[in-house]
Amino acid sequence: MHVVIPFAAKSPKTRLASVLDLNERREFAVAMLKDVLDIIKRTSHTLELLVGEQTSSLIKPYFEDTLPPIVAHDGTLSEAVNSRLDAQFDTVQPTGGVAVIMADLALLTVSAVNKLHTSDGDVVLAPGRGGGTNAFITRSSRFTVNYHGLSYQDHCEIAKKANLSFTTVDSMRLSTDIDEPDDLIEIRLHGDGYSHEWLKAHGFEIHSQTGRAAIIRRE
Amino acid sequence: MHVVIPFAAKSPKTRLASVLDLNERREFAVAMLKDVLDIIKRTSHTLELLVGEQTSSLIKPYFEDTLPPIVAHDGTLSEAVNSRLDAQFDTVQPTGGVAVIMADLALLTVSAVNKLHTSDGDVVLAPGRGGGTNAFITRSSRFTVNYHGLSYQDHCEIAKKANLSFTTVDSMRLSTDIDEPDDLIEIRLHGDGYSHEWLKAHGFEIHSQTGRAAIIRRE
Repeated sequence: MHVVIPFAAKSPKTRLASVLDLNERREFAVAMLKDVLDIIKRTSHTLELLVGEQTSSLIKPYFEDTLPPIVAHDGTLSEAVNSRLDAQFDTVQPTGGVAVIMADLALLTVSAVNKLHTSDGDVVLAPGRGGGTNAFITRSSRFTVNYHGLSYQDHCEIAKKANLSFTTVDSMRLSTDIDEPDDLIEIRLHGDGYSHEWLKAHGFEIHSQTGRAAIIRRE
Repeated sequence: MHVVIPFAAKSPKTRLASVLDLNERREFAVAMLKDVLDIIKRTSHTLELLVGEQTSSLIKPYFEDTLPPIVAHDGTLSEAVNSRLDAQFDTVQPTGGVAVIMADLALLTVSAVNKLHTSDGDVVLAPGRGGGTNAFITRSSRFTVNYHGLSYQDHCEIAKKANLSFTTVDSMRLSTDIDEPDDLIEIRLHGDGYSHEWLKAHGFEIHSQTGRAAIIRRE
């Protein structure tokens, strides 16, 4: 399959602003992106990074020589993804379909990508916490996206209206997107890549307490 | 395998106290328990409900004639579970091992239980959000539990020290425990059992907003 990874570097991860400044959020967002890229590179799937014009120049310094294939598009996230789905099905018709995987799935594993790839259905969705859509694969050109906080239900509806079979993949790793301070602990607990190292290097430690453990930042 | 489901009805789900009073928390906790019981009953596994003496009398009115097999134990959760693991391995030696599944996994499915059952390893762990242990199966009498907010890491250590092979199961449905108000939306989004109905009947609705969707209670 072909994997599209949308990424925006201009002001990423605004909901982490209470614990990270803009420069840190950029570094951290790139670290998570690198974790996702590393996983896709360990599979046989092709990939592209889908970015706005500004992001394209902003991320270059973080990658040195190893920049992945980049496609630039300056619309909204939904416009950009729909345009890439169209382009793929119109021209390449990729074997196995087109997947769109968010760049903040810092716990992604090869096995989680395979779950998406091997699940039956015209459309396979991986919901995120709170009703977002963290990843999906479509094997039909008739599926389109409409991203927003509660997009999972809409994407089920879009598939249904287009008369496409759809299913959901059950994966903690695909369901864990990193948007809010409370999410960071999952990377410290279960991650082992760039974003895990970044959090460690920037003083984020697991703090045991009554109820769920929390993450705190050392001064 | 044999499935142990610990349950406490005296003052359940205290972290939901900002949105549910004691009586509601009891009803809701029982609704989630019934969802879990229904799933286990659809498998070939045996089950027991592990409760304190007080819970035993408290839950009877909720079940009428269909009360599941109950074992009473008045220690802490860890003491009670360790005692039941000992009892199972000492006497019954159940084929396929002993699983302990928390009663608040309201999104449990037969397929998620099967993931636990079919994963290789002396011990298979399903971590919860924030480092808890939502479910596990042990095929060795040498594994013991020590439950607390950050128990997942401890349980990995306990398995390691006992020279047991252990692995983690990747399931959104096993990783979603319902402890805090923000968790309730997952039931409204992905549930279809008693707890889903209970939340609907008690005015809990999905509210779309910037970022993750929230749940609100109608007056």
